[in-house]
Amino acid sequence: TAEYRIAAIPGDGIGPEVLEVGMEVLDAAVEALGSSRLEFQILPWGSEYYLQNGRMMPEDALDILKGFDAIYLGAIGDPRVPDHVSLELLLDIRKGFDQYVNIRPVKLLAGVDSPVKLKPDAVVDFVVIRENTEGEYSRLGGRFKAGTADEVAIQTSIFTRKGTERVIRYAFDLARRRAEEGIARPGGPRPMVTNCTKSNALNYSMVFWDEIYDAVAAEYPDVHRDKALVDALTMWLVRQPEYYDVIVGSNLFADIITDLCAAIQGGMGVAAGGNINPERAYPSMFEPIHGSAPKHKGKNKANPVATIWAGSMMLEHLGDTAAARLVMTAVEAVLAEGKCRTYDLGGRSSTTEVGEAVKKTIRARGDALLRA
Amino acid sequence: TAEYRIAAIPGDGIGPEVLEVGMEVLDAAVEALGSSRLEFQILPWGSEYYLQNGRMMPEDALDILKGFDAIYLGAIGDPRVPDHVSLELLLDIRKGFDQYVNIRPVKLLAGVDSPVKLKPDAVVDFVVIRENTEGEYSRLGGRFKAGTADEVAIQTSIFTRKGTERVIRYAFDLARRRAEEGIARPGGPRPMVTNCTKSNALNYSMVFWDEIYDAVAAEYPDVHRDKALVDALTMWLVRQPEYYDVIVGSNLFADIITDLCAAIQGGMGVAAGGNINPERAYPSMFEPIHGSAPKHKGKNKANPVATIWAGSMMLEHLGDTAAARLVMTAVEAVLAEGKCRTYDLGGRSSTTEVGEAVKKTIRARGDALLRA
Ligand SMILES: CC(C)[C@H](C(=O)O)[C@@H](O)C(=O)O
Ligand SMILES: CC(C)[C@H](C(=O)O)[C@@H](O)C(=O)O
Repeated sequence: TAEYRIAAIPGDGIGPEVLEVGMEVLDAAVEALGSSRLEFQILPWGSEYYLQNGRMMPEDALDILKGFDAIYLGAIGDPRVPDHVSLELLLDIRKGFDQYVNIRPVKLLAGVDSPVKLKPDAVVDFVVIRENTEGEYSRLGGRFKAGTADEVAIQTSIFTRKGTERVIRYAFDLARRRAEEGIARPGGPRPMVTNCTKSNALNYSMVFWDEIYDAVAAEYPDVHRDKALVDALTMWLVRQPEYYDVIVGSNLFADIITDLCAAIQGGMGVAAGGNINPERAYPSMFEPIHGSAPKHKGKNKANPVATIWAGSMMLEHLGDTAAARLVMTAVEAVLAEGKCRTYDLGGRSSTTEVGEAVKKTIRARGDALLRA
Repeated sequence: TAEYRIAAIPGDGIGPEVLEVGMEVLDAAVEALGSSRLEFQILPWGSEYYLQNGRMMPEDALDILKGFDAIYLGAIGDPRVPDHVSLELLLDIRKGFDQYVNIRPVKLLAGVDSPVKLKPDAVVDFVVIRENTEGEYSRLGGRFKAGTADEVAIQTSIFTRKGTERVIRYAFDLARRRAEEGIARPGGPRPMVTNCTKSNALNYSMVFWDEIYDAVAAEYPDVHRDKALVDALTMWLVRQPEYYDVIVGSNLFADIITDLCAAIQGGMGVAAGGNINPERAYPSMFEPIHGSAPKHKGKNKANPVATIWAGSMMLEHLGDTAAARLVMTAVEAVLAEGKCRTYDLGGRSSTTEVGEAVKKTIRARGDALLRA
């Protein structure tokens, strides 16, 4: 059986608690199926490390991480460290490992309530693909006449043809794959890639983006085109989330949209993401998209579902599809039963109780699968 | 009685239909109260004008408009004219008349259904203040190595201290005014100005913006501070819209947020905006925030409520507060009664039928008010 080496970065706040549960659940799944072996190595990086060493990770962090098959991250952020410092850990790994695809499944799991009113037969099951290495996050700019009444601040976005094209292409390939695998549900034309843009106002960057979208789309005549201005898209996502299949957007726009999507699918407690280097030249990184929630730290309160879901995406990426599916089947079964859920989903269970329930379901289902 | 000269730009698509109803309703209100007189001058600018003259408005358009007390706009946009051309009309007026405050009331009117699940006692009644002349809409940038595989597109946002400070100050003044007038409802701390930002990622522009927010906030110790990253804000707006009082954001961020807010308050059919030059050096402009909906053109189908609401904001701005209130009281009464509403609100009435119902209510209430 394959063995995968995984760098586990628990990080700050509730990160360690949810990641611990995530690792246990993944272990339970691969053990139940005997499908692979996971070797986690805990890397104690993050804000605590920063307070002692003046940096979020060691200088050779990327060299260390390079030796792993994947990275499993808890959460980053601490009130004692400025936000723009702590998030460097995240951005450095995303950029350093050319994880140019940020993939965010948006699915309303059985038993989870959405804050928006859905049509009775609506199935919310789509994916947002976010450009993850350039664009508005280029962090270029400056301040002129600083401190004076005439001060001007400048922020520049850079979009490259290569960077734009490859992420849009990924979205089209994914839409095709979803259709082939029968994942895409018929709430709208399928397969379909929605281009999230704002080319009416951002007359260089997003006009460029649209041109590249059109050029790539021309190579996929079997995939429906759809264009939505980011402002209007927020409205449609609330009114008709079942319409979407794959949405592709720039670093900033898809960042905004995915938080809205997290709300629609039941909140940050159930929203996972992957930072992918599709060429597999570097390890990819999987994380719940929530923050470190410092005020809940150590309270065994946080919802581990987002982290477990991210772990399932990691197993899928590594190649253990059977274990990945078993994990999500178990999560959905536990949530659908409704007895064991954390406060954010209206329950009273703890982080570890949810973890135990999922593991128990995994073992039961795993036994049944093996006997069959 | 005061007389106001108003430039009416019906524009494209459904613009003329909704603006016609808007003008009739405003006339009915000022006549019922005898509170002022309105002189509308129709300016036939827009996409039709463009197709004949190669520009959206005459060269001396701003000179012509300068002579008016306010501008009342229908909608702009036509399939025969590229978007980035037609919207120049809007952007040229906003910038040319230094209408640096875009004000968007977000209120769930009685009888209108929200697509989000609200708490039983939740009162959605807040205002979004959008910077309207600079920032991400500076339209600066370019393309390098165009057409090659190495092409790069650059888009630059410019924020000035003056431009940022004045709009944030407007938001704080507004929060104070709302509290004094007893408008602000207790869904959260009041008065409060929420700073919509993304300073963790946009390390020049939004860090600058935050600094100015903090400096202005220090002058308003009676107003609560609140900071929300634009991505997280989309989530909170869906889950807890009653929390907000005044939200201030940059040109792009508040553009995105206000479309989401329009959805929350029942859709584009009931969302109005004002483009304000607070110093009154130039006329301000009032408009429904919806587009021109070309496919509904000439069908007497579009919801005129957004345009009527924009007209009420215009009357308020001009100084005829009594008529402004009478208009909205009548709109709310008609919507609450539920018999006369357009398709987007689940009804079957036409644009003009809604207009007639509002005018009838205005006349009845106006009579009662005058007799009292
Ligand atoms: C922490 C922050 C920089 C980050 C982002 O904006 O990318 C977060 O919102 C995310 O989506 O992972
Ligand atoms: C037409 C477009 C440029 C405009 C904007 O983005 O400002 C519109 O969305 C608005 O909000 O008025």
